[in-house]
Amino acid sequence: MTIRYPNGKKYMPVQKSTVQRKTDFSFSNRGMALEEELNESNEFYLSRGIAVIHKKPVPIQVVNVNYPARSAAVITEAYFRTPSTTDFNGVWNGKYIDFEAKETKSSTSFPLQNIHAHQVDHMKSVWKQGGLAFFIIKFTLLDRYFIVPYDRFERFWERMETGGRKSITLAEFEKAGIEISPGFNPRIDYLHAVSILMMVSEETIEGQEEL
Amino acid sequence: MTIRYPNGKKYMPVQKSTVQRKTDFSFSNRGMALEEELNESNEFYLSRGIAVIHKKPVPIQVVNVNYPARSAAVITEAYFRTPSTTDFNGVWNGKYIDFEAKETKSSTSFPLQNIHAHQVDHMKSVWKQGGLAFFIIKFTLLDRYFIVPYDRFERFWERMETGGRKSITLAEFEKAGIEISPGFNPRIDYLHAVSILMMVSEETIEGQEEL
Repeated sequence: MTIRYPNGKKYMPVQKSTVQRKTDFSFSNRGMALEEELNESNEFYLSRGIAVIHKKPVPIQVVNVNYPARSAAVITEAYFRTPSTTDFNGVWNGKYIDFEAKETKSSTSFPLQNIHAHQVDHMKSVWKQGGLAFFIIKFTLLDRYFIVPYDRFERFWERMETGGRKSITLAEFEKAGIEISPGFNPRIDYLHAVSILMMVSEETIEGQEEL
Repeated sequence: MTIRYPNGKKYMPVQKSTVQRKTDFSFSNRGMALEEELNESNEFYLSRGIAVIHKKPVPIQVVNVNYPARSAAVITEAYFRTPSTTDFNGVWNGKYIDFEAKETKSSTSFPLQNIHAHQVDHMKSVWKQGGLAFFIIKFTLLDRYFIVPYDRFERFWERMETGGRKSITLAEFEKAGIEISPGFNPRIDYLHAVSILMMVSEETIEGQEEL
């Protein structure tokens, strides 16, 4: 099947042999590993019919495009834009899933400056709509992964906004989050952790208010 | 607040005065109007706390980036990639919403070549997960809008795959879809149409099997 752009131009897949993919454009090597682990996990979920969750494309503002004859359109000037939402979203058992994944090289705490305020606003809106919004945080040096639902994350965010500490400590993750042990397939079974979170009663959450 | 890319580089918003936004890169002027109408509608839904639905960024493969001193990273070589999912998704009343929006200049039928096979596969997976997947089709010359849920769309897709006609006729939209009348705010109240679809009983859908 010939695929065409809506403007009628033929879609030409990028030839790997002619275009060397460089990695220096990535937002962060720090973030790549976790992102790949999650992409793999999502492929596993999709292939087994467990969930349909994808990473969103990086938002890019395109300024200039060349359309050489008989080859793919080349974007010659473009800029990265700040994401206004989260990295991943999708559906699992009829439930809306929305999360942001971040890594830190710190062994003691996760710096909140890694999170944008509009992403937090977005997750709050999602939470209000009955969606499942959460963070997946990886402490790379410790090889430890935590999932923190938005409602618990909010306390730490508000603490920062009211002049408190600008990070979440590892000990706080151990209390407020669910730890995920990396496995083979899926690599990061975060939906299992989400299902545990969903089973946690309101009472337990109340009991953790002092966090 | 200073926003930084994960690599530590400062985020510099693109200056409108120095970068002239050109429109010739867009996939289609044909598609722009509907997309803008839907973005406006989604902003309305978001501002009123009705739903959190966004257009996904266009997937772009970045090949080369320059990092000039003291200014924003400039992407100097990149390519459009074929989207593997749909244009819009989000959450509404706890329900996962996923749709593709297309326009046609035809006054009589919508050509199915405007839809990619992997987008249809994606919607099928979403439907199986209990998500609400649908198409919004605009007949631009008629100024008529239809919403067609995935399960009804599937019949027309299968008809094409088994050698039948490669389009959906306007008359078929009138039967299988819900027509949306454009309004002021929101411009395209497609969630109202979705709620009507959800009220439609199984019986009615059965009654339309002959479509």
